[in-house]
Amino acid sequence: MLPFEHLIFINKENKIPVYRQIAHSIIMAIRNGVLKPGYHLPGTRELSKTLEIHRKTVVAAYDELHAQDWITIIPRKYTAVSNRIPILKPQQWNAANDLPSYENNFSLPFRSIGENIQKPFTGLLPEIIIDDGHPDVRISPIDELLKTYRSYTSKRHTIKNANTGTGQGTLKLREELAKYLSETRGLTISTDNLLITHGAQMSIYLAAQLILGPDSHVIVGSPNYPAANAAFLQTQAMLTEVPVDENGIDTDAIEIICRKKKINAVYVIPHHHYPTTVTLSPARRMKLQELSITYSFAIIEDDYDYDYHYTSSPYLPLAGSRHNGNIIYIGSFSKILDPSLRIGFMVAPKNFIDQCTALRTIVDVGGDGYMQNALAFLIREGELKRHLKKAKKIYHQRRDFLDILLKEKLSPYISYVLPSGGMAFWIRLSPEYPICRFTKIPKLNILRTDEKLNAFRFGFASMDEKELETTVDFLKRELEGM
Amino acid sequence: MLPFEHLIFINKENKIPVYRQIAHSIIMAIRNGVLKPGYHLPGTRELSKTLEIHRKTVVAAYDELHAQDWITIIPRKYTAVSNRIPILKPQQWNAANDLPSYENNFSLPFRSIGENIQKPFTGLLPEIIIDDGHPDVRISPIDELLKTYRSYTSKRHTIKNANTGTGQGTLKLREELAKYLSETRGLTISTDNLLITHGAQMSIYLAAQLILGPDSHVIVGSPNYPAANAAFLQTQAMLTEVPVDENGIDTDAIEIICRKKKINAVYVIPHHHYPTTVTLSPARRMKLQELSITYSFAIIEDDYDYDYHYTSSPYLPLAGSRHNGNIIYIGSFSKILDPSLRIGFMVAPKNFIDQCTALRTIVDVGGDGYMQNALAFLIREGELKRHLKKAKKIYHQRRDFLDILLKEKLSPYISYVLPSGGMAFWIRLSPEYPICRFTKIPKLNILRTDEKLNAFRFGFASMDEKELETTVDFLKRELEGM
Repeated sequence: MLPFEHLIFINKENKIPVYRQIAHSIIMAIRNGVLKPGYHLPGTRELSKTLEIHRKTVVAAYDELHAQDWITIIPRKYTAVSNRIPILKPQQWNAANDLPSYENNFSLPFRSIGENIQKPFTGLLPEIIIDDGHPDVRISPIDELLKTYRSYTSKRHTIKNANTGTGQGTLKLREELAKYLSETRGLTISTDNLLITHGAQMSIYLAAQLILGPDSHVIVGSPNYPAANAAFLQTQAMLTEVPVDENGIDTDAIEIICRKKKINAVYVIPHHHYPTTVTLSPARRMKLQELSITYSFAIIEDDYDYDYHYTSSPYLPLAGSRHNGNIIYIGSFSKILDPSLRIGFMVAPKNFIDQCTALRTIVDVGGDGYMQNALAFLIREGELKRHLKKAKKIYHQRRDFLDILLKEKLSPYISYVLPSGGMAFWIRLSPEYPICRFTKIPKLNILRTDEKLNAFRFGFASMDEKELETTVDFLKRELEGM
Repeated sequence: MLPFEHLIFINKENKIPVYRQIAHSIIMAIRNGVLKPGYHLPGTRELSKTLEIHRKTVVAAYDELHAQDWITIIPRKYTAVSNRIPILKPQQWNAANDLPSYENNFSLPFRSIGENIQKPFTGLLPEIIIDDGHPDVRISPIDELLKTYRSYTSKRHTIKNANTGTGQGTLKLREELAKYLSETRGLTISTDNLLITHGAQMSIYLAAQLILGPDSHVIVGSPNYPAANAAFLQTQAMLTEVPVDENGIDTDAIEIICRKKKINAVYVIPHHHYPTTVTLSPARRMKLQELSITYSFAIIEDDYDYDYHYTSSPYLPLAGSRHNGNIIYIGSFSKILDPSLRIGFMVAPKNFIDQCTALRTIVDVGGDGYMQNALAFLIREGELKRHLKKAKKIYHQRRDFLDILLKEKLSPYISYVLPSGGMAFWIRLSPEYPICRFTKIPKLNILRTDEKLNAFRFGFASMDEKELETTVDFLKRELEGM
């Protein structure tokens, strides 16, 4: 008889019922080859004595094992490990070391993606976090959104609406969004031209997967939004960088490249280029569009920051002008409501949207239909526009307040151009203060820094005036101490 | 002078302010080359007369155009289209037809994914929808979840918690989930072994992207979950199908294939194989694990349906037994709470999870951190377990109720094996009643049908007894009429 008191582990503190713990231990012993097919297990009376537990618990454990086909019970005769269990070749199992299974490395070949572009956090949050341009969820219409969300989960009709055809996004949200984009951006589109995604990044990823491949060339600005570059590189396309100056991406440089080699796509952030916050000038907008026709390339227009432009109305997107359909227009609600609310969209011709939808369904089935329909309700009721108006005013004030703070407290150390819109400043540090010193301060985390340009993004929209002041004071103390 | 009354389109019903409509029209005319660089625009007084609107509106429009750099204003002299706008070559623009931009096809080469695996809906929802095994959101703890969600969006601290490092999933959810999976499935893991995704499908997609490629071979059951097959095919891997019988996937067939060619991965749904609902037998579980070591292949264990097993406790996952780390274990909360609540997970060794996280960040940045933390709270408070206990009881009753209904009303037409768990029946129609006739009924939509096997999934969990009865009666009437 095996020493069952050592084979079976019972922890009465554990939330798993004792009978399941016993069953679990016996399954482990079978799987490890300790209990072999045909082995006669001790009787319930005997085992209950050995383990010092009630006999009923052992009976329950054996019932469980029997129901799961691990053991054979011949009433009043014996209970044995099922003969249908294969006999293990122990030498193979000995090869495994003593680590718990998941402390081993995954030891088969797999593709390496490289370093994670998101900085990982381990445990405690730093005191001061400077994001790269998040909205302030505290002023977002979350109450309205969640109230509507809740109401949609109680009726069969609205439940079906939320769970039907979500690969492309719910029909209700696409209907409202088509109207909304026509009113705010002059886009003439139907629900067929829209794919709802988890945000701008997913739209970029899907578009890249469809139009780029190992033989493709894509042009991006330098510096650029790193996650977009990463999405392009995933397709094994070649990335060509062109400078971004105070008027946005350099279209003359694009033209020179187009003369030399076949370009498949140009990625452009027309409003408040990431990270430098500049806006693409009208002249360059027209030039880019002309080039896209002459040299047959797609324009991936990432207009995530459209809604917050303070010095004038936002510029109409390239997608809003007359074109031949080869402009993939991308936007996001994560920059309006909260980065965690993962709703974005892509606008493109139907033949392209259909294939993007097919791919999206394979990637993750679809989005949260209740949230999408709740957002549709917010748009229909005008709540989103009211929110945008309010938020724009508040962010404008915060931008101006941070401008004053920075001038007053940090001017010896930094330089910047006041952004005409968006939710972040692009701040360059004087060469005597290398940004790498900042990244070493444990209490501080800056989401987007650029060591080469010795600069960082200072997202101001998510902080109220007091928080902005605390943050600037913190930076001042650190800079003074350097 | 150009006929500005025909160049500028004003619609007073439109929600866009009139001054922006004017600016928009002028931008279009510039972009289309109708208004050329240097062209002198009419004075504000003149234009207001032409358009029969207030002069202030024209002033506002010109201010807007000026702020956006489309025009040059020389006070008291003239207003002209900016000379920085490039001169367009009209012949290129004439090539475009008269369609609105997005009614064109995307005309550059792009990858075709094929037919969408989700059936598209166009407009009206059918009266009767039979899903493939959705939970009933009406009994889910949505109130608790959304209340917690709401509370997390009001404090800077919880906001940061929700928006920090979400590529891998929030730390709070990974902590709770590591404990929960240990208690319910015997997995010994840490937060490093967990990636939170948008559901089982995204976990499958990411894993496939990392371990499969054009030279890979993956084994799947036949029939299988189509979306998993689609995810594997996306990597250009070769798919080899092996039969699924009443004990699950045929491991002897797998062994025969492994002897002949290098297999990189086997995809298995141990609980309630999709679509046929069978459970993988213990003997085959052990056999599969042995084969994975002998022939060095990864096991992708999709255990989406773990929580609902009615005849016994659920079987412990393969991942819960001792192994060498090459089992990628996949689960989902979308099957517990609601298909729209897109939270799933992947368990794997840290080196694999790190690379999956890097890829996930590129695909869509991350998930909804508030929802993840609200779910973490639900788990910590024991609310999830209470819900599962309640739901299991209700679904068990619904399964038995549907069993009675089907026997009573549809027995001449169908055959099935009562599923031991899960949320759906796999129903085979008699050959005289081909399933393709069902798909033509406008009032009816069945989410998962199989023409070859003349069968369909009947998801019972999302319907209460009255709804089940209505649905069966509907099917009965239709079958009688065929």
